[in-house]
Amino acid sequence: MSLIDWVIGRPLALFEQEGETIGPASGVPILGLDALSSAAYGPEAALTLLLPLGALGLGYIAPITAVIIAILLIVFFSYRQTIAAYPNGGGSYTVAKENLGQLPGLLAGSALALDYVLNVAVGISAGVGALVSAIPSLLPHTLPLCLGTLAFLTLLNLRGLRESGFAFRVPTYLFVGTLGLVIAVGIFRAISAGGHPIAVASPPLVPAATTAVGIWVILRAFASGCTAMTGVEAVSNAVPIFHEPRVALAQRTLTLIILILVALLGGIAYLCGAYQLAATDPGQPGYQSVLSMLTAAVFGRGLMYDVTIGSVVAVLALSANTSFADFPRLCHILAHDRFLPESFAVRGRRLVYTSGILLLSTFAAALLVAFGGITDRLIPLFAIGAFLAFTLSQAGMVQHWRKRSGTHARKSLVVNGIGALATGLTLVVIAVSKFSDGAWVTLLCIPLLILFFRRIHRHYQNVERQIATLTPLPPPETRAPVVVLPAAAWTRVTQHGLSFALRLSKDVHVVQVRTETDDTEILSDNWDLLVCGPARVCGIVEPKLVVLTSDFRQFFKPLIDYILKLEADHPDRDIVVVIPDLVLPHWYENSLHNNRGTFLRTLLRMRCTSRVVIVNTPYHIAASG
Amino acid sequence: MSLIDWVIGRPLALFEQEGETIGPASGVPILGLDALSSAAYGPEAALTLLLPLGALGLGYIAPITAVIIAILLIVFFSYRQTIAAYPNGGGSYTVAKENLGQLPGLLAGSALALDYVLNVAVGISAGVGALVSAIPSLLPHTLPLCLGTLAFLTLLNLRGLRESGFAFRVPTYLFVGTLGLVIAVGIFRAISAGGHPIAVASPPLVPAATTAVGIWVILRAFASGCTAMTGVEAVSNAVPIFHEPRVALAQRTLTLIILILVALLGGIAYLCGAYQLAATDPGQPGYQSVLSMLTAAVFGRGLMYDVTIGSVVAVLALSANTSFADFPRLCHILAHDRFLPESFAVRGRRLVYTSGILLLSTFAAALLVAFGGITDRLIPLFAIGAFLAFTLSQAGMVQHWRKRSGTHARKSLVVNGIGALATGLTLVVIAVSKFSDGAWVTLLCIPLLILFFRRIHRHYQNVERQIATLTPLPPPETRAPVVVLPAAAWTRVTQHGLSFALRLSKDVHVVQVRTETDDTEILSDNWDLLVCGPARVCGIVEPKLVVLTSDFRQFFKPLIDYILKLEADHPDRDIVVVIPDLVLPHWYENSLHNNRGTFLRTLLRMRCTSRVVIVNTPYHIAASG
Repeated sequence: MSLIDWVIGRPLALFEQEGETIGPASGVPILGLDALSSAAYGPEAALTLLLPLGALGLGYIAPITAVIIAILLIVFFSYRQTIAAYPNGGGSYTVAKENLGQLPGLLAGSALALDYVLNVAVGISAGVGALVSAIPSLLPHTLPLCLGTLAFLTLLNLRGLRESGFAFRVPTYLFVGTLGLVIAVGIFRAISAGGHPIAVASPPLVPAATTAVGIWVILRAFASGCTAMTGVEAVSNAVPIFHEPRVALAQRTLTLIILILVALLGGIAYLCGAYQLAATDPGQPGYQSVLSMLTAAVFGRGLMYDVTIGSVVAVLALSANTSFADFPRLCHILAHDRFLPESFAVRGRRLVYTSGILLLSTFAAALLVAFGGITDRLIPLFAIGAFLAFTLSQAGMVQHWRKRSGTHARKSLVVNGIGALATGLTLVVIAVSKFSDGAWVTLLCIPLLILFFRRIHRHYQNVERQIATLTPLPPPETRAPVVVLPAAAWTRVTQHGLSFALRLSKDVHVVQVRTETDDTEILSDNWDLLVCGPARVCGIVEPKLVVLTSDFRQFFKPLIDYILKLEADHPDRDIVVVIPDLVLPHWYENSLHNNRGTFLRTLLRMRCTSRVVIVNTPYHIAASG
Repeated sequence: MSLIDWVIGRPLALFEQEGETIGPASGVPILGLDALSSAAYGPEAALTLLLPLGALGLGYIAPITAVIIAILLIVFFSYRQTIAAYPNGGGSYTVAKENLGQLPGLLAGSALALDYVLNVAVGISAGVGALVSAIPSLLPHTLPLCLGTLAFLTLLNLRGLRESGFAFRVPTYLFVGTLGLVIAVGIFRAISAGGHPIAVASPPLVPAATTAVGIWVILRAFASGCTAMTGVEAVSNAVPIFHEPRVALAQRTLTLIILILVALLGGIAYLCGAYQLAATDPGQPGYQSVLSMLTAAVFGRGLMYDVTIGSVVAVLALSANTSFADFPRLCHILAHDRFLPESFAVRGRRLVYTSGILLLSTFAAALLVAFGGITDRLIPLFAIGAFLAFTLSQAGMVQHWRKRSGTHARKSLVVNGIGALATGLTLVVIAVSKFSDGAWVTLLCIPLLILFFRRIHRHYQNVERQIATLTPLPPPETRAPVVVLPAAAWTRVTQHGLSFALRLSKDVHVVQVRTETDDTEILSDNWDLLVCGPARVCGIVEPKLVVLTSDFRQFFKPLIDYILKLEADHPDRDIVVVIPDLVLPHWYENSLHNNRGTFLRTLLRMRCTSRVVIVNTPYHIAASG
């Protein structure tokens, strides 16, 4: 077993595909991690912005969460329909492109692509950040821990889907189980205590208000809370990775994810009010995450606390994985439509899209390194991408149903229409309220990405237009080509090349370029003896010897000039350049030779036209005894 | 004028060579800097080792210097003879190889090569060190200053000889002039004062003795003092860079260098005794170089002091340049004898040996970076290389004269014999007394370098043996080749390649590799219509279509296997693989295509024999409007 087999796994054939598909049990961890982990930072993000309102602010978390849950449910019903309508994967790109056109499609695609990259960096650094705040001695190793996690996720995804699913089940279900228990016990106690439970470990006191309540504060808190919804589109994008019946299993997975997420968000919001848990200022001493305060309030700081917080850390770090499931797939679709290089369309040895996985890792690593592993400031950037994609997808579905008739289509149109309206409004709120926090970066990058995609597309179209043909084979060329063979000395290598050259034409020019400092043999000295004589004996036309001299010790210029002149002199004949060269037994031995052959080939391709054909006659050298 | 012309200078033709040769006025700065700058550290190195003897030690500096000067004069007479006997450059490598054989030649060559590299690093860091101790605020920038100086020297040398000569004249003659004046005035005052002059600025008191006088201390002081002799071989190595009459001008240059050096060494030694100047401990606070103390004692710390010390700094930093004149020349000779890659034998656009200059810079930069710009500890390493080369060169000259007869040859033999004996004895003293100080590194590196040179030589011999031939052109091959053309689809690119393939043989196999995930057209669907029909009409043999399928989405393996099988099935015929591919208008567009052609070419060269010829039919795409 080779090293690469051991690390990545043996190659898989396409007929093994079925074994690499998943059901809901793996689907929730693989496609739901991003959405579920949002519960760990969405409510906290909203609470942080309510902080200036003091105790009064806590009263607003319940209505804000209610609105978010309402939008979440709208989005849920919309995406259920999308899954049914696009069983081959109805990512926002596909839905927007097919129903609204190329530009909206690319808009959704680039928004999603940005969103995925940001999600990897933010997820990993949030997880490592939580770990580091629990074990402060790890603080100096933040960046290596982030990059290590990224490398782990990359490898896992290069190995393929099924194995990733297994790896993510334990932390995901532990997260849902423990946090669910915290919320259930908390709600039970709160209700038993008439709405005012006593915390086992008391949270910090709610600070006094510094600002009056205003619509702007509430809108910004709502916009931050909406990050809890990111990742919901993952399932609709990845329908093909499910077993049959695909659509039903994908819908069931989405339902499970949304139910869990709604329960977590609602529970957290209720308990924050009941236990009077305000956010603490991140970046200040004494900072504690909301989930940490909540768990401590319900269970105290014992084993249960450690397990719960441990699972939160793991789920945050692994939430990046949802991007690994979807980003390469998005790249594949974009490459298939010729908006990305064709290598993204190719499946690797493990049936995964290797190029997409590696590109995602590279970008995420660059972000992590650039920000030193602390990417909190990137959070505002990525809700924009998600909601832009949501909106375009819903709008696309509206268009989809408009083209159909019947009660089902009408009902569906209403559902998707409400979805488009709700997500579109949310998008506007986020874009406006977060513009100066960094949303402008996203709004700047998206058009640049679209330009890039279209530029690539134009290139492929240009090539396609020039090479496409339906004309059959043209009649064979009757004029023999002019053959040029560069030679430095009379060796077996030259002989080997010349023998081949003489097959091609009666018009062979052997060209020796002599630089002023050359002390090599002059081919013309023995040309008659070595070449012309034998040629006459065999009755073939003698090859012509051309000696070119060079003033500036340049080898290539005189040769290329000679070939360009031949090309001009014979406008109706092909020019064949035969390059004889050595093939050495070991690659490192190439550094001992001038490799003029390779360089000449590159120059010929750059300078000449399609009429110049390049022949390489390799002469193999055996290793020395 | 292009950027490279401006930085490096316009290309020079060989007939401009004469303009690039030099006379003694440039010869002393270019070839003597290394030797002359030794006066700045040789005496100091000896005095430092005499430090433990206290005031008594100062009494030994005069006899030690006398011995060093005696050996220097012996070496001088020997090298004068070498210059006369080897007007094309009698470097130690050449002399030792021609008279003693290949191994002693390589021994001298590798010793010198190491010596040159060390000299660059040590010279630059000594110069920058002196500058930094004069202007302490520059201390944090030691390494950038070193690398900047190295880059300056590299550029100057890439531009060529003459310009380097001009650039070095000012500091060299300033150094010789000011230091000569210091010594002349000092000696005059010392003699006027009856041998006990009064210092203008008093040197530190000589510390008390900590060790008794012993032969070991004296030998080590002598060995250190011998670093004053390094660089003396430079002229003999570089005779060809002088105008005619070369030999006379080279000898005159050597005489000038030695005379100046002897005067400086003798003067410094005499004045150290007269003014009671002991070395101070380098690396300790209060350290002052011997030349600084001497100049201050004679002239005080005024303008004259500043100018003198300034010229010392400049000459130390530029002394590295001697290596730049000689190392590339040594590499050229080694490459010419096929002990180094052939690129070292080629002259660049400015008639200099570009590869050698760049290699020297690279190694020196690596040493400077590795030691952070402080390379004092490397000083013991490089006297070994110099004296090993001296000894082998003299021994070679002894052998040279033994083969000749006459009074001149007998007299010369005696001179070179004494030279060989003196330098050989000195070598043993240095090797033994400096062994643990680092000389062992040199003694370890030299055999490794020799192994490396011989390994390269063996490679070239092996290739030469396999390609050399005197047999004339063999009769032409009558059996037509089997032609293979890989094709993915019916495009103009394929058509272009197929037209060429049909010229070569009646036996053309068009191979389509279909991977399981392919959704490209199946060539066989239209093969009859597009190819067979037209072929029949034109009366040519129809090319055969072969469709290969691949289980693991591999493209190359099935294709290579097919070609290897053809090779085995047709042991008496050539196989020609025609690779049609795109040539795109811009290089960066290549990243948008799979470049299978290039990869296939590499694989074919690796896996097949000389019977497999590779044809590339480039199809040029125009830039999009």
